[in-house]
This record gives sequence, C-alpha cells and structure tokens, in this order.
Amino acid sequence: MNYRFLIYLLGTVMLILSALMLLPMLVSVIYSESVLPFLYTVLILLALALPAVLLSRPRQKKIYAKEGFVLVALSWSLMSLISALPFVFSGTIPNYIDALFETVSGYTTTGASVMQGAQIDLAPRGIMFFRSFTHWIGGMGVLVFMLAILPSDGNGAIHIMRAEVPGPTKGKLVPRLRHTALILYGIYITITLVETVALMLCGLPLYDALVTSFSTTGTGGFSVLSASVGGYGNPAAEWVISVFMLLSGVNFNIYYFILIKSFTPIFKNEELKVYFAICLLATAAVTVNLTVACADAFPSVGDAIRGAFFQVTSIMSTTGFVTADISLLPELTQTLLFVLMFFGACAGSTAGGIKISRLTIIFKMMRSNLRRMLKPNSVKALKLNGEPMRDEVGTASLGYLALYSATLLVTLILVATDGFSLTTSITATVSCFNNVGPALGDASASFACFSPFTKLVLTLAMLFGRLEIYPMLILLSPTTWRRSMN
Amino acid sequence: MNYRFLIYLLGTVMLILSALMLLPMLVSVIYSESVLPFLYTVLILLALALPAVLLSRPRQKKIYAKEGFVLVALSWSLMSLISALPFVFSGTIPNYIDALFETVSGYTTTGASVMQGAQIDLAPRGIMFFRSFTHWIGGMGVLVFMLAILPSDGNGAIHIMRAEVPGPTKGKLVPRLRHTALILYGIYITITLVETVALMLCGLPLYDALVTSFSTTGTGGFSVLSASVGGYGNPAAEWVISVFMLLSGVNFNIYYFILIKSFTPIFKNEELKVYFAICLLATAAVTVNLTVACADAFPSVGDAIRGAFFQVTSIMSTTGFVTADISLLPELTQTLLFVLMFFGACAGSTAGGIKISRLTIIFKMMRSNLRRMLKPNSVKALKLNGEPMRDEVGTASLGYLALYSATLLVTLILVATDGFSLTTSITATVSCFNNVGPALGDASASFACFSPFTKLVLTLAMLFGRLEIYPMLILLSPTTWRRSMN
Repeated sequence: MNYRFLIYLLGTVMLILSALMLLPMLVSVIYSESVLPFLYTVLILLALALPAVLLSRPRQKKIYAKEGFVLVALSWSLMSLISALPFVFSGTIPNYIDALFETVSGYTTTGASVMQGAQIDLAPRGIMFFRSFTHWIGGMGVLVFMLAILPSDGNGAIHIMRAEVPGPTKGKLVPRLRHTALILYGIYITITLVETVALMLCGLPLYDALVTSFSTTGTGGFSVLSASVGGYGNPAAEWVISVFMLLSGVNFNIYYFILIKSFTPIFKNEELKVYFAICLLATAAVTVNLTVACADAFPSVGDAIRGAFFQVTSIMSTTGFVTADISLLPELTQTLLFVLMFFGACAGSTAGGIKISRLTIIFKMMRSNLRRMLKPNSVKALKLNGEPMRDEVGTASLGYLALYSATLLVTLILVATDGFSLTTSITATVSCFNNVGPALGDASASFACFSPFTKLVLTLAMLFGRLEIYPMLILLSPTTWRRSMN
Repeated sequence: MNYRFLIYLLGTVMLILSALMLLPMLVSVIYSESVLPFLYTVLILLALALPAVLLSRPRQKKIYAKEGFVLVALSWSLMSLISALPFVFSGTIPNYIDALFETVSGYTTTGASVMQGAQIDLAPRGIMFFRSFTHWIGGMGVLVFMLAILPSDGNGAIHIMRAEVPGPTKGKLVPRLRHTALILYGIYITITLVETVALMLCGLPLYDALVTSFSTTGTGGFSVLSASVGGYGNPAAEWVISVFMLLSGVNFNIYYFILIKSFTPIFKNEELKVYFAICLLATAAVTVNLTVACADAFPSVGDAIRGAFFQVTSIMSTTGFVTADISLLPELTQTLLFVLMFFGACAGSTAGGIKISRLTIIFKMMRSNLRRMLKPNSVKALKLNGEPMRDEVGTASLGYLALYSATLLVTLILVATDGFSLTTSITATVSCFNNVGPALGDASASFACFSPFTKLVLTLAMLFGRLEIYPMLILLSPTTWRRSMN
C-alpha cells in the first residue's frame, strides 16, 4: 500500500471539499444567514488537508487497483464524517449520527432523510442548499472531479475512476483520463444549468430551481419542501423534473457521443433501449393502475400519466422525489416501484441500484444457459452492444448480484433489530442500499424513527450501495491492512 | 424429442400414482368414509395411463437432458391436475383451482393451504391423509420412485433423476441408478416410520403420527389440525417434529454414508456443517428475541428455546409447521425467518429454497473474487468438500441465483395485482416459491384470500421452486417444441 500517496490524495480531496463549501457559504451570505457552520467546517478541513498535502509528498505516484478502492472508500467516509458538521453546527440536525445519516444520504444520492415537516421547511437556506449540493457532488463523484482538475493523470488513476464510477464496464472516453473526467463534468454542469433554467421558466424561484436541479441531476431526491416536489403544485415543473430524472439515469457517455455527433454507439447501446423500454412499460402499467384504483386522486388520464411517469422515473433513476405519499398509492403500484428500486438506471450515470447493463448481461447469460441445456452442442458467443462479450464480464455481473443479495439480507436482519414491521425494514433497507430514498411503513415520512444503531447500519448500506460494495468491503477487510498482503 | 418414450413414461407415472392412491383409499375404508372420490380418480388415471403404456411402446429407450426436464415438468403438472380431483369430488375443496393449488402445494412440499379452521378440522380423514401423503410423494419425487421400481435403468435415466432431485450437484450413490433410487427411498421410508413411532410414544394417535410424519419427512407442512402442530399442545411431540424437520433437511446421501459406515465424506461435507451452524445461530438469535420481546408467550427460557428451535427448523427445512401464529412473533424473528425462507436446507433433501450448498459455493466464489481483486496474481483453486471445485459448478450456482431472483420478482409483480399489502404479496411469493408454506399479512391464516389468477400464479411458482426452475422453463419454452430444435 502506497500510504504516502494515499494520504496526499485524501488531503487533496479534503481541499477540494473545502473549496466546494464556499458555494453554500455564499448562499448563506446572500440570505443573511450565519456562515459560521460552514466556516468552522472549512477550517477543520484545512487543518486536516494542508498537513496531509504538504507533509506527505509522495515519492512515487503509482496506484494499484487495491489502493483505488481504498482511496475511494476512505474519501467518501471521511468526506461524510466532516460534511455532517454544518448540520450540527447550525442546529438544523443537532444529533451527530442523524447528521451523518443525512450527509451520507446526500453524497450517495439516496435522499432518505431524518428531517421532516417544519424542520425542512424552516431550515436555513444555506444549509438546505448544501444538503442538495452533496447530491450533486456525490452524483458524478468527488474523485472524478479531482481527476478533472489535477494536472497529472498519475500512474494508475484509472483505478480511482473505476472504483468510483458505477457499472460493470468502465473505460475512458478519450485517451487522457483527465479529459474524460473534464468532459463528464462539463456535461453534468450543462444538464444541471439547463434544468435550472427550465424550472425557472415553469415559475420556480432561482434558489428552488437550482437546488432541485442539484437533487435531480445527482439523482438524489432531497427537496427544500417537506412535501417534496408535490409541494410546488406545479404540473409543468413535474414534467420537467421527470424528464431530467430520466436523463440523469442515462450513461453520461451517451451525451458525449451526442456531442461529438457519433450516433452509431448510441443506437447500438442495449442498456439505453432496455432502460427506456422498462420506463415506458412501467409508466403504462402504473398509469392503468392509478386510473382504475385511484380515480379520486387522479381524476383525468393526463393526471395519471403525469403521476405515473414522475413516480417511475423518480424510482428508476433512484432519485426518490415524490409528488404524492407513496404509501397511499395502490398496492400494485407500490410493489412495482419496489421492484424498480432494485433495477436502478444505467451504468455511468448518477443512479444507484443494480444497473440496467448488469441486468441485461445477466439476462443474456440466463438465456444462453437455457439454450445450452436444450442444445448442448450449440456454441453461440454472447454479444453486448453488437460486440462479443467476454466471459469475465458475465461472471463479474453474476458475482456482483450474489454479493449484492448477501449484503442486502445482512442489512435487512440488522435493520430488523429495531422491531419495525417487515414492510418498514425491507423498504428502508432496499431504498437505502439502492440509493433511492423513500420507504414505506413507519419510515414513510422520515428515517428519524430508527435507532442510532440502525441509522449507522443504513448509513453504511448507502455507502456500500453507491460505491458498489467492493470499495467498502476492501476498506473493511482485515486482509487489506495486513502487511504481508502488500 | 422421443415422444413415444415420453408418453410411455408419463403413462407409467400415472400408473404409479393410481397405485399410491390405494393407500388413502384404505384409510377412507378404515374410517368408513366414501371411497368414491379416490375411486373416480383412479379410474381416470387408468383411463389415461393404460393406453399410454400399452399403445406407445417405445422403439428406443434413450433419454437426453431436454427430455428429462420435459418429462419431470410434465409428470408433475399432470399428477397435480389429476390429484386435485379427490378434493373436488369429496367436496372438501369444491373449487377446482383451489384444489389444484392445494395439490401442488402438497406435491411441491410447500404446505400453503387454501383451507382453514373447521374446513381442516372436519375434513374426511382419508382426504386429509391423502393431502399429507402428497408431501411425502413429492418430497423424494415420484420419478425417483419410478426409477426405483422399474427393472431397467433405461439409457440416460440419470437425466430424469437430475431434473427431479434438487441441488447443484447430483450423482449416483452406487453404480446402478435403480439401486441409488431404492436406497434413497429405503432411507426415506425408515425415517418416516421412526418418526411415526416416536410421535406415538409422545402420545399422538397412529393416524396423526403417520400423517404428521409424512408432512415432516417431505418437509411439507400440511397438518390435520387447523392450529397446525401447536394444536396438539404437546411439547415432547414438538421436539420430535423439530428434530425430524432438521433431519429431513439433510442430504439423504449422508444417511447412506452412515448406513455403510463411511464417515469421511460426512465430516468433509461443508453443506452439512453450514446447515447446522445456521440452524444453531438462528435458534440462538430467535431464543434471545423471544425471551426479551415476547416474555408473556414464552415465560421460561426452555419454552423460548423450544419455540425458537421449532420455528427455525420448520422454516429452514421449508416445512412450514407452526406452533404459534408467526405474525404475532416479534418483528425481528419474523424478519429472520423471512430471510431463512430463501436459504432452504441441503441439496438432495426434500427441502426447497436456494439450498445451502449453492449458498456455500456462491460465498466461496465471492470470497475468491475479492481475494483476486486484492491480489491479482494469486491463483488459489476453489475447493468444495475438500475437493477441487470445477468453475462450471460455481457459474451454474450464480446463474441459478440470477434466474431465481428474476422468477421471484416476476411472480411478486403478478401476485401484487391482487392489491394486497406489500407484506402479504412478498411473503406469499417467497413462501410459495421456496416451498415453505406460511405467509404474513392477509395470507397469514390461509391463501384462500387470493384471486383465482393469483392462485394459479402461486401454483406455478411452487412448481418452479420445487423443480428448480429449469424443467418448468423448458416445458413452457416454445423453442423446446419447435421441430427444428430436435
């Protein structure tokens, strides 16, 4: 383990974070709120970051896969531990464990909240800006940001990117990693600004438009209103948010291909087609269900389509905004949304979940398995996006599914120690682990009901989910830290 | 597809079934009940079986993997369709779809029932005997029975056994398949009789002891009392049943090794150790939970241990007997039991679920995966039961898990169309698919609440679960029946 370089990079991440804190601080200044919560946090960040960056100049800048995983897991943990402080300092969330839950929920773009009602509606604007801003930072990843702004690619920086960007297959868009990261962030910023403008055209104030855009493009789900997006009572804005949730669930590489007018890889992208197809099918099913079973809340077909499209894109992109209390929707819709929570959206997007590409790969493997059983002598190579798929890609996806299931069950049992109903425990676990946000039962209004222990369990589950298990597992595995393993 | 041989074998299965019907018929005679429901059914069976056996003498007796799967799936479907008739003819379950659900629940050793209360307690004894007898027949498998009594092994009969016996790895115990099948049934009958005697020693009447033994060794869960085993109020009998549920979840090969005093393969058997370890751990956890959270229902630690051991072995062996209303147990216990439903017991037992051996294999693959990530150059061959594990075994287990998850989610969505709560839909789906039996929510007393459509969906889910998906999938796949595929 290259400890010196690791500490140096961790310091860099903390420096970046302290710089990013200036934005919510500015918001506090604009709204004449106290800047102290952020100021204190920035000072703590600098006190940690400066010695790390200045004193541990690395002798060699080489990173292996293991270090990539450890760096990402450590960065996210450390960032979360420190970013929880503004919530505590401002008194918005006085309890540190609650604040940590909220922060991790932010960075992992989950959107599950311990806040509710007036606590949300009356919170300082700077703090609420910061809360949604964590979605935005976590969406594309702070280490990808670091790779974008640091001059040197370093040696093996691709391992950092691989560990932070979700999905089964990751590569560079352009030969230089730094340019890839820059392109991704460029696209990300553009989408965020376009949504902000669109929401303002719908009548939302700048502050609400910007904060909602952070939560949308990061597929997070934190809202400055306790009634979430439904609180605006603005159908046009709901349509805009739906579309941007859908778009934020798309692999950002697709936008790069649009940018450089290279349409072949887009048309060949199976994940994209499956993602849109599932969204369409689920929207249709939910629309029918809402029209039939919930006619009083959705009087016209137009209302039902809008409600269905919003809720489907919100859950499938793992954003988690709501326009209505999900627990009051028909049970079939609730179950459909529950199943969609597992799916997630596309790899290389800001969404959580298993990812459509993994599901597509797994489906192809199952089909070829069955074919081989029926016709043992037939050999048909698997293809993905029109190109031959390596066996390892399939096995890795299956292995991920197994690890995913195991983590889910362990989390579920730990969460159940609080003694809430099965519905509460299951939906809270599935929602946090897939970085979606809303849950049913006792947790339908807020996650405040859980014990500190369970909150920590769910906090870890969110980190495991966002980083796709391996980085956290490697960070917590004793073998990683044994000297002989080096 | 060797249609002639397939029809001939199907006819043979129907003949065997008509012979097996004589036993419940005898019970009806003893208790002076009408034998007509069974008589009519036997006549129908013979009318179908005799032409099939007599007219379609196969020219060649060769069976391939595909035919094995199709034969097993067809046999189970046909058996179930016809065995539902006695329930209808006797008026015990007048509705055919309900009767079919009950029958499939019997053969698949699920134990989920559409009957409740007085309907169970006042039903004819011959019918109730038959109901539990279906567990016993389905437990070891009717085709394994056929292989045991038919003189010729046929060519490729191993494919039939592979398709019917659950678990990732299957082989013969002795060179001749027929002897293997005979040994398995010999052990099965012995265990059943030993339990019957033990239950009689605890004070149960012969009828109750025998019927309960059928349901235990088949890991089914049907009881002749509406209050299930709890209705006897007999702690000694509960202990006996617990132990036999545990034993029925063990791979029957183990008993053969005990029989021939070959203990090395037993000590090397990892599945067995893991199975016992999980049972022990879960029993301890549930005991603590019952003592702490449910002190009024379990006043002494002894009561708690008995209750915990009973419920854990019942769920893990996928039997599904209950001594108390599960929905009144502490939520943590409910969640633990819910998670155990997925696990199931050992391969080559009468239990359902994913099977401990598959979980062990998957766990080993995940661990080696992680190790390879940390140390890319290390090559360490995976071992199972002390012997090298082939890669295909691991991939097949992972593939099964994926197919299992997909089937589960599809079933869940179809079941949810009935509009019951998420808890009801999920537990009913998981319970049926894993062949366990009890569910929570609206289905906690009986499955009668579901619509005919959902009952058919759950019926299929039970068959998919018992036969481990592939046979049913191959039966229902259009490619199987396309001429060009032959």
